[in-house]
Amino acid sequence: MNNPQLNKHGELQHLLSTEGLPARIMREILDRAATFLDEADGHEFKKVPLLHGKSVFNVFFENSTRTRTTFEIAAKKLSADVVNLNIGSSSTSKGETLLDTVDNLCAMHADMFVVRHSSSGAAHLIARHVAPEIHVINAGDGRHAHPTQALLDMYTIRHYKKEFHNLRVAIVGDILHSRVARSQIHALTTLGVPEVRVIAPKTLLPTHVEKLGVQVYHDMAQGLKDVDVVMTLRLQNERMQGALLPSAQEFFKYYGLTQERLALARPDAIVMHPGPMNRGVEIDSSVADGPQAVILPQVTFGVAVRMAVMSTLAGNTP
Amino acid sequence: MNNPQLNKHGELQHLLSTEGLPARIMREILDRAATFLDEADGHEFKKVPLLHGKSVFNVFFENSTRTRTTFEIAAKKLSADVVNLNIGSSSTSKGETLLDTVDNLCAMHADMFVVRHSSSGAAHLIARHVAPEIHVINAGDGRHAHPTQALLDMYTIRHYKKEFHNLRVAIVGDILHSRVARSQIHALTTLGVPEVRVIAPKTLLPTHVEKLGVQVYHDMAQGLKDVDVVMTLRLQNERMQGALLPSAQEFFKYYGLTQERLALARPDAIVMHPGPMNRGVEIDSSVADGPQAVILPQVTFGVAVRMAVMSTLAGNTP
Amino acid sequence: MNNPQLNKHGELQHLLSTEGLPARIMREILDRAATFLDEADGHEFKKVPLLHGKSVFNVFFENSTRTRTTFEIAAKKLSADVVNLNIGSSSTSKGETLLDTVDNLCAMHADMFVVRHSSSGAAHLIARHVAPEIHVINAGDGRHAHPTQALLDMYTIRHYKKEFHNLRVAIVGDILHSRVARSQIHALTTLGVPEVRVIAPKTLLPTHVEKLGVQVYHDMAQGLKDVDVVMTLRLQNERMQGALLPSAQEFFKYYGLTQERLALARPDAIVMHPGPMNRGVEIDSSVADGPQAVILPQVTFGVAVRMAVMSTLAGNTP
Repeated sequence: MNNPQLNKHGELQHLLSTEGLPARIMREILDRAATFLDEADGHEFKKVPLLHGKSVFNVFFENSTRTRTTFEIAAKKLSADVVNLNIGSSSTSKGETLLDTVDNLCAMHADMFVVRHSSSGAAHLIARHVAPEIHVINAGDGRHAHPTQALLDMYTIRHYKKEFHNLRVAIVGDILHSRVARSQIHALTTLGVPEVRVIAPKTLLPTHVEKLGVQVYHDMAQGLKDVDVVMTLRLQNERMQGALLPSAQEFFKYYGLTQERLALARPDAIVMHPGPMNRGVEIDSSVADGPQAVILPQVTFGVAVRMAVMSTLAGNTP
Repeated sequence: MNNPQLNKHGELQHLLSTEGLPARIMREILDRAATFLDEADGHEFKKVPLLHGKSVFNVFFENSTRTRTTFEIAAKKLSADVVNLNIGSSSTSKGETLLDTVDNLCAMHADMFVVRHSSSGAAHLIARHVAPEIHVINAGDGRHAHPTQALLDMYTIRHYKKEFHNLRVAIVGDILHSRVARSQIHALTTLGVPEVRVIAPKTLLPTHVEKLGVQVYHDMAQGLKDVDVVMTLRLQNERMQGALLPSAQEFFKYYGLTQERLALARPDAIVMHPGPMNRGVEIDSSVADGPQAVILPQVTFGVAVRMAVMSTLAGNTP
Repeated sequence: MNNPQLNKHGELQHLLSTEGLPARIMREILDRAATFLDEADGHEFKKVPLLHGKSVFNVFFENSTRTRTTFEIAAKKLSADVVNLNIGSSSTSKGETLLDTVDNLCAMHADMFVVRHSSSGAAHLIARHVAPEIHVINAGDGRHAHPTQALLDMYTIRHYKKEFHNLRVAIVGDILHSRVARSQIHALTTLGVPEVRVIAPKTLLPTHVEKLGVQVYHDMAQGLKDVDVVMTLRLQNERMQGALLPSAQEFFKYYGLTQERLALARPDAIVMHPGPMNRGVEIDSSVADGPQAVILPQVTFGVAVRMAVMSTLAGNTP
């Protein structure tokens, strides 16, 4: 079967999902990302001309200042021209179809689309539709995938743990609604993590989640035991009032990451969160601000990883 | 009488309307636009330094992501600094007058204003008001004019038909409320198209429209007969519920561009639309996606034409 | 006591307030600003590479197109990459704390923050929190300070009056709620203006305002007598319906700057306003458009002053 993310040479043509993304390509992206972080200085991304003259369109059908900003920064550091389109308030409200909107943006000679959409599969749909020389990056589609988040998480894990083949990783929280969790699971298993655990109440787990290659825990004490990495998930506000959860307080009581619970993991375990955090809901402030948290380095690595993805794509032709 | 669009040397100082714009200047813009399209590559606009160090302000008193984006892309390809101002939610809501807002933007040393406003005449008012070294481009004012749309339409026609002097062109739809139609009519007649037809119900035609030099048809079969170019117009959503139209379905029944009706035009007729399209209202999907449609090339040519307008203006001094 | 605006060498590290800002630094900023205005041409700011490769984040928790635009223009003229963040509609609405938002933006390797916030002290809080290599510019915090406005006002005064030590300056209007007035008073007294007057009704004056080193007037005729500079303040719309003021008309009757009242000042007095103006409320149109008004030059000088502040900060290390 044809992999819509790869060109005929097996190179990255679009980044849509970590599912089906070869480990080889993931590792190339992580290696390339490292070259953009100036280890000597530590606070600068190098400005490089790799995308000079190219146009990157941030096409956000769903608002997200944080994700949009990291892509914008990444593209500008690569010297691209960046155009931000907040489509929620635009043409689609004028009755134009998604594909007509995309066709129009293609006709303006975009070189790359960064797409966020509330519908699962939107980025795939767009990637299938655009002219072959245009690259599409999925910046989050519905509950489906958020591959650049997963790749920056992999960068973070590799940065602190060096290898994947000897790790126990736990993902904690609302797995059911999380595109982040889905993309993390595929990336972790692809990169050879032998033990990936998910910890959540039954109501916040997809049916048959174990088929993704994970071990299921409903209890934090058991699930966190001896893990090397704890990946917490954001509890979406809209879930907190829903039927699936009694309350945010109740969630914190059973699944919030406290120092006491973190002590069950390995002493050098790292704590990750995709942001924005709900302090006191999925994570206690003492953990979020504690020595094991690598939440802010995740953000920094995220810019480098997005620079790596964009420059990799720009170098590949259909 | 003094032409507010021209400087004392008869060169373009502002682009406000195709009415009164000499054919010589229109042709210069179309010729220059062609130089920005890389015919060899076909997918790149050349990035050129013609506006390096210049500031282009996209001043949109009325929201339009599509038009704003094409101007933004055009300005960035010319290496300008681009500032987007969505004024609807800004100073005017603080009680500042339009001209005070404009004075302030001038004082920030804008080199060029791209203005969209819901009031007819706003761009003229601003052009009369600004310092002589500042150029104004009308990106649509009320029901009055949308000259860059008309010029990109002329580019499209010339691209496919080579000449204007031997054409029959039909403009179909809501002529009454359309700044696009007004600008198209002036451009077509100025460039020497011998037969310009408008096809619309009486309720959607301006009184005395024939004084603009057009032939009036109320019937699609008669109006489309043997034309070389069909220019469809967008039916604004707000008209569809109004007193002037029974319904969108009714409009499509009598004035929608179907394959059957298009067959009445010349076999090599091209179909144009300024976008965004209402499929099934003013145009049938089979026509919009058919071989005679040149709707997406219009968008591409639009970037080149806007680059041409901006670089022409930047080269002229009062 | 440690001055949070200065580094250990006594150089500008953050610009948070004119209170406590040494006269030496103010003068350096004004001198540097002059170098960015091309006196020969008069209409261009020079584009310079001083901030090439640097990222300036315009972080606006409170909307302000005008101020944001002048900072954006200034940063782009310095060749910085500029990212605009309108945070009102973003992460803070997702329950993230202000400092978590700031931490995240820091982790994206911003070099400079331009911050507008409705809470007094927000910029100080952020400056204390960020990594030492990041510079913070206060673009207005609550009723507290708006230092770049005050500095551009000082530039304007020096431009027209050459010296500060021989001036009488009157600030007129709603002193109580005005961060602009507070910053102006500190700047004027620091730069050695011997007589600073405030003119306002008692309800629009802070208690003990005279402790700031100003003379208090409640009557325009007395307060304007023989002054060299009249600095009018914007009357915020929300005050006009409040309990502190009977009505906008009433305010204009007693405190509006008319030609008749301006005649009481020195014949070469200049009239300033931070914008946007309420014509017929705090200032009469004949004065706003008259020969003594320098309101639009203030805007121009504001871009140059912001270029000076940004480039000064960028050159200093903690």
